[in-house]
Amino acid sequence: MAFIKLNNENLPGIVGLLDYRPETAKPLADLAETLLRGASSLTPGERELIAASVSNWNNCHFCFSSHGASAAAHLNASIDLLDDIKNGLADIELSPKIKKLLNIAHNVQLGGRQVTREDIDQAREAGATDIEIHDTVLIAAAFCMYNRYADGLGTWAPEEKEAYIEMGKQLALDGYVAK
Amino acid sequence: MAFIKLNNENLPGIVGLLDYRPETAKPLADLAETLLRGASSLTPGERELIAASVSNWNNCHFCFSSHGASAAAHLNASIDLLDDIKNGLADIELSPKIKKLLNIAHNVQLGGRQVTREDIDQAREAGATDIEIHDTVLIAAAFCMYNRYADGLGTWAPEEKEAYIEMGKQLALDGYVAK
Repeated sequence: MAFIKLNNENLPGIVGLLDYRPETAKPLADLAETLLRGASSLTPGERELIAASVSNWNNCHFCFSSHGASAAAHLNASIDLLDDIKNGLADIELSPKIKKLLNIAHNVQLGGRQVTREDIDQAREAGATDIEIHDTVLIAAAFCMYNRYADGLGTWAPEEKEAYIEMGKQLALDGYVAK
Repeated sequence: MAFIKLNNENLPGIVGLLDYRPETAKPLADLAETLLRGASSLTPGERELIAASVSNWNNCHFCFSSHGASAAAHLNASIDLLDDIKNGLADIELSPKIKKLLNIAHNVQLGGRQVTREDIDQAREAGATDIEIHDTVLIAAAFCMYNRYADGLGTWAPEEKEAYIEMGKQLALDGYVAK
């Protein structure tokens, strides 16, 4: 049970918090929609992989599982992709560019000042554009927020990865802004 | 100089990034406006103190200085408040409630799972409501994002605290959303 009395205790992770406080839910959802599904030369699947990896490094089970499941849906992969994300993405074919962007995301997760000009140069040499570097840093930073929000208020999350399959498909299809 | 080519290199910290990417700037500014200046039983000065403290713990000089200067403007304090924030707010009179909310914010900064039910109970015993606890967690989480965004892209910031006095007054007066 969450640390505060939510409107609906059945809603897991950040979902119950967005339902609790609509004033902050709107910009939070708009940000996720723009970053993960807006116009970009990074595919939605690549961006969800970054989001899920950061959430894994932050040990946020709900965000990790739901965004990992969304990445799986975008990439036509099975839900076992969640195990692969935990193991550092050894089993999936990744472009050199995405590997370098994931390295930047990992350093952002550790702290903004952990990112070096060398990290940026390596991503650029692998083909990343300025806007892709910008969006990678902001996706990683944003999930350092979403993860702390969900866990800092003690929300619950389904344990098993299979529980996230339908949620991942729905996020991949409909996104983050209520229609 | 920032790690990517911004539209205007003269704009410091997160300001140059908001100018560079208007699509993400809007939800980021809307979130700050709602959290720091929207309807709340926490005063704007109290909320800016939380934002500046988290930014100090994250070692983000621009966000720390600008939000500390805004707190000073709201609280009718001098810019020396920045030194006091760095020293753990020993010189300013704080309510027991704000002290306990700052403790929650500090644990959020360390990681979402660092917040315990005891931290929440202590804040509640000191008079904090559920919505105040919610907003404190989200302010702290959001500044873990803003700080990583500004520093992860290598933005520059004026060094001296005096450079932030006018900015703090303007933020306290006009807020975060372009009029």
